[in-house]
Amino acid sequence: MIIVMEESASEKQISGITDTLVRLGLVIHRSMSVHRAILCAVGDRPVALENIKALEGVKEVLHVKEPYKLASRSFKPETTEIKIKDVTIGGREVIVMAGPRTVESREQVMAIAECVSRNGAKVLRGGAFKARTSPYAFQGLGEEGLKYLREAADRFGLVLVSEVMEASQIPSFIKYVDILEIGARNMQNFSLLEEIGRFNKPVLLNRGAAATVEETLLAAEYIMSGGSYEVMLCERGIRTFLRNTFDISAIPVFKGFSHLPVIADPSHTTSMRDEVAAVAQAAVAAGADGLMIEVHHEPENASCHGMQSLPPEQFEQLMRRLRMIAKAVDRHMLSPLIEAASA
Amino acid sequence: MIIVMEESASEKQISGITDTLVRLGLVIHRSMSVHRAILCAVGDRPVALENIKALEGVKEVLHVKEPYKLASRSFKPETTEIKIKDVTIGGREVIVMAGPRTVESREQVMAIAECVSRNGAKVLRGGAFKARTSPYAFQGLGEEGLKYLREAADRFGLVLVSEVMEASQIPSFIKYVDILEIGARNMQNFSLLEEIGRFNKPVLLNRGAAATVEETLLAAEYIMSGGSYEVMLCERGIRTFLRNTFDISAIPVFKGFSHLPVIADPSHTTSMRDEVAAVAQAAVAAGADGLMIEVHHEPENASCHGMQSLPPEQFEQLMRRLRMIAKAVDRHMLSPLIEAASA
Amino acid sequence: MIIVMEESASEKQISGITDTLVRLGLVIHRSMSVHRAILCAVGDRPVALENIKALEGVKEVLHVKEPYKLASRSFKPETTEIKIKDVTIGGREVIVMAGPRTVESREQVMAIAECVSRNGAKVLRGGAFKARTSPYAFQGLGEEGLKYLREAADRFGLVLVSEVMEASQIPSFIKYVDILEIGARNMQNFSLLEEIGRFNKPVLLNRGAAATVEETLLAAEYIMSGGSYEVMLCERGIRTFLRNTFDISAIPVFKGFSHLPVIADPSHTTSMRDEVAAVAQAAVAAGADGLMIEVHHEPENASCHGMQSLPPEQFEQLMRRLRMIAKAVDRHMLSPLIEAASA
Amino acid sequence: MIIVMEESASEKQISGITDTLVRLGLVIHRSMSVHRAILCAVGDRPVALENIKALEGVKEVLHVKEPYKLASRSFKPETTEIKIKDVTIGGREVIVMAGPRTVESREQVMAIAECVSRNGAKVLRGGAFKARTSPYAFQGLGEEGLKYLREAADRFGLVLVSEVMEASQIPSFIKYVDILEIGARNMQNFSLLEEIGRFNKPVLLNRGAAATVEETLLAAEYIMSGGSYEVMLCERGIRTFLRNTFDISAIPVFKGFSHLPVIADPSHTTSMRDEVAAVAQAAVAAGADGLMIEVHHEPENASCHGMQSLPPEQFEQLMRRLRMIAKAVDRHMLSPLIEAASA
Repeated sequence: MIIVMEESASEKQISGITDTLVRLGLVIHRSMSVHRAILCAVGDRPVALENIKALEGVKEVLHVKEPYKLASRSFKPETTEIKIKDVTIGGREVIVMAGPRTVESREQVMAIAECVSRNGAKVLRGGAFKARTSPYAFQGLGEEGLKYLREAADRFGLVLVSEVMEASQIPSFIKYVDILEIGARNMQNFSLLEEIGRFNKPVLLNRGAAATVEETLLAAEYIMSGGSYEVMLCERGIRTFLRNTFDISAIPVFKGFSHLPVIADPSHTTSMRDEVAAVAQAAVAAGADGLMIEVHHEPENASCHGMQSLPPEQFEQLMRRLRMIAKAVDRHMLSPLIEAASA
Repeated sequence: MIIVMEESASEKQISGITDTLVRLGLVIHRSMSVHRAILCAVGDRPVALENIKALEGVKEVLHVKEPYKLASRSFKPETTEIKIKDVTIGGREVIVMAGPRTVESREQVMAIAECVSRNGAKVLRGGAFKARTSPYAFQGLGEEGLKYLREAADRFGLVLVSEVMEASQIPSFIKYVDILEIGARNMQNFSLLEEIGRFNKPVLLNRGAAATVEETLLAAEYIMSGGSYEVMLCERGIRTFLRNTFDISAIPVFKGFSHLPVIADPSHTTSMRDEVAAVAQAAVAAGADGLMIEVHHEPENASCHGMQSLPPEQFEQLMRRLRMIAKAVDRHMLSPLIEAASA
Repeated sequence: MIIVMEESASEKQISGITDTLVRLGLVIHRSMSVHRAILCAVGDRPVALENIKALEGVKEVLHVKEPYKLASRSFKPETTEIKIKDVTIGGREVIVMAGPRTVESREQVMAIAECVSRNGAKVLRGGAFKARTSPYAFQGLGEEGLKYLREAADRFGLVLVSEVMEASQIPSFIKYVDILEIGARNMQNFSLLEEIGRFNKPVLLNRGAAATVEETLLAAEYIMSGGSYEVMLCERGIRTFLRNTFDISAIPVFKGFSHLPVIADPSHTTSMRDEVAAVAQAAVAAGADGLMIEVHHEPENASCHGMQSLPPEQFEQLMRRLRMIAKAVDRHMLSPLIEAASA
Repeated sequence: MIIVMEESASEKQISGITDTLVRLGLVIHRSMSVHRAILCAVGDRPVALENIKALEGVKEVLHVKEPYKLASRSFKPETTEIKIKDVTIGGREVIVMAGPRTVESREQVMAIAECVSRNGAKVLRGGAFKARTSPYAFQGLGEEGLKYLREAADRFGLVLVSEVMEASQIPSFIKYVDILEIGARNMQNFSLLEEIGRFNKPVLLNRGAAATVEETLLAAEYIMSGGSYEVMLCERGIRTFLRNTFDISAIPVFKGFSHLPVIADPSHTTSMRDEVAAVAQAAVAAGADGLMIEVHHEPENASCHGMQSLPPEQFEQLMRRLRMIAKAVDRHMLSPLIEAASA
């Protein structure tokens, strides 16, 4: 049940209604819409809509037909803006998150962070722990990798995102990263979703390879129902008869049904670099709020998936094109030079 | 076998080699590359590569590992430019093909043709015969529909494309249309492909809903091996667990493997208009040479699939955005006003 | 609209109603149900159901919600039995159709026909014309192949099925074969479906690789609406992220929605012979009315797909198991020895 | 690296080689093949195969090309038999695991356990904790549910399997259940797989909805590399354009590549009861070592998914058919009456 308050509703009226509903056994979430308060009441107990509608300050009471409530546009008409340091994800600026797939060494992280920062990326991404399909594959540098990433992010003024593999890692991740990433294979690891929802930290949630839009929004709902509202959705391709197909339509569809920012990760769709760049361009043209790009300063020496990582010069060219495409769809990506000049 | 000739090779050398190979039982196709002649020899007979290599004027002889030969970039390094009247498909200009999914009446066709022409579309598309999944569904106006389309195309200076359903229709289609379209369900109707290859008419070949990139290029090869080299590939989505998913990556992949122009048709991926526009934008950003867009002047009254057709005002807004995106990827779409001004 | 007649309805009442509906512009099909006549009226014209219900001899009038009518169980409650010579497809006997994927020579066809006949197959299957994805692949022996197949079928008392590729081939096929097969790639080649529906000959319709159950039944409806009611459906796998997955559930689902016999073809799902046999066994256990099995007397020398063809000894072992499984699901497959003894 | 010992190799030779390899930094697993010892050495360190081959008692040294080692048939030629109380999974008997999808009450569990036991099921299955896609859906009775299941299993002499949702639940599950089940959505929850591998308890591992055969065997390898060798694989359908398609071919394929027992769960493929029974029959015919069947004594009152649960009478009929099909494929399922008589 969504309770839309009048614009003129007082804080007292809002908290009065909240108290009433809590006493009825419901859990209440409040949306931070700019125009008016919107409450979302979740719970098993049947409550007569008319009674709520009759309360003072209430504009309308809606039944949300979608199974997700907090993630839906009905609950929050404006796209959520997630502010981390001086970066805003979900605003007019298209945010690029870039970095190595896997942390290999301090030197590697520093070199790549310098490159992505110089070209206008705002967020550093990098894998410290690796979810590998085989128990015998390289599992990452672990906490040491997180330290390198944090050091590099700080030096180059970047926000940091890295993938957390299991609930027990969350506390140590929180010391290092700004955004907790949940990998595609964990999208329906409900105990991890619930646990992460208890920490008030932005989350980047990857869509599972076989997940529908609704299932993805329900996974976000698991996190949000724990009180952690700052969730970004990440489209990175679905399993099809071609193995992995980037679902470009998911971008407008997610944005139609939900207020959460949508990030696109074209790295998994391909083993051709031209394809990565083309899909990145397409994602911004389709309305993505951000991009995840794998960059490697020496892709031919990368420990794995070097073919999916862009070398610096190709990343630079891509960023130039993205700035023009962003403008074409009423968004922007400031050129680092312009920013430097205006600083 | 691909035989790349020296730039300096004379016409006599080229025809000498051609004759030799024909006598050996091979079929020879000649590519119209700007720099040099490239021959493709197709057939069962084993021919010693070294013997061919030794002939005068021959630069190199390649074995094409892909099963398609004439459609491959090895045979023809430059993208094929298909010139129809004053329109060039496959050049720097991104070509928009727009019109009604189904011809309903003369008035409807005229109204839509005027709208799409005014907004910069160069090709009129419209279904006269309809391939319907059910034998009881509306099957289209038939030849009468073709007449309306031709009349509208002529009045507004548009090139015309329409889908041919079966081999017996080809002769009457050729009287009316400039481009023969083969629908996704007929992509592996090999007898239709062969038949159409006998007419020297540009063909727009839709990828089948479950076709791989290779199978699509082999379908093009069927047409080309009949001598009809002017084939365009049309990406319009594949069957996945979400039903239809537009395969945005197919655009750079087709263009990497083949010299044939690639058209994107976002209409089948969706039932939301915003999704159609977003995917159209994405396709141009990913490098498509053209777009197919369903436009209807009164979509709420369309005989079918009204939700996939853009109304005129949304089409106009889309065209404005596409012009900016085209520029961002080193292509262009002239604004109709600019064209008018320069005329 | 389905009109179920009383058991006691006279032939005169039935033809009276038929005439009335025909005069109203509808096309009438009559089902050969054992208990009573069932009519299916197809057409655009709206007819008041109550008026029809009031006519004498009418038990009930149903609206068929499925888009297919003639193929639905509502129109014909009993499974259709297709009788060809002394073979009945759709009865209690599970029918095995076996033979080479491709006809290579007269000797090959004779050797394989002898083997499959000796082991209890009732139908000889073999490809004379081949639908090949590439224009350069072997296209089959053509009409010569049909002659060999017919000769072999006659010598060993087998019914013959072979795939027709295009409408123009139908008349010559009809001279040789007992069952016309439509391949998966032609399942939505509507002009071929319509054309084949004009000949009164049993049809084996392969499900397309990306076709839903409903689309397959609509393809059958295309054939049946032309008056050719003897259609068998063939499940042979769908395109998935594993490429081809045999859809075992389709067997009970087809049989639930339709009265048409269902044949299973496990050859395309695999490149392992053990998998072919396992899926064949599964199909009979799931209720298939028949099987298509590729058998080759020298699979290692087969011109193509040798790994999918069973050698004679494995075919023999499979047939023994199938006889026991058929019995477990209240069907039967007579052992050739028993048949010989009882003769 | 797989080291196959001579049949005549002494225990001393085997442990000598093991010690040598452990000193070289490898982890050694020993297969319990009936004929001879087979060792699997896992690790990063390069070891010269010839040196190992030269050691006494060694028959051959193989490189396993599959990324999974312990799960492969090369390591263990005979199918693994998992013995729990008087039940053997992976032997000639086909084992039926049956029970409610979700535990609703003590009475419900008792009634269903009685029914499934009486009809020959050997394992009771039931969900105490539920992984639900939505955070607002019923999450199960939890530990209380486990108690009811244990009580029912004990009373009717059944082995018990139930799904564990997260690592922290394992210790309490171990008090109640005989087999730990890992759900499809957790198949690539690698931290859960590793944790469960530390307990020496049989595991039933569900294939993920978008997992390949190789990924599933690698998930099993995660568990086995922790020392827990008693893993069963459960096929329950993959995501396709039809949503969920039971992959019948996976049964022979898993059994070809791996020695682990394969269980089939047809409940998720369908919403028609006839389809559940047909697929169950098919799975046994294709060689499954066991079945998971949802049974509910009052399916119309089930808290969820009632349509996928068989009512007692349909379960009884299914078991009769399964006994006959098992025999047809050289397996058996004893009838409860026969067992009672021979007792």
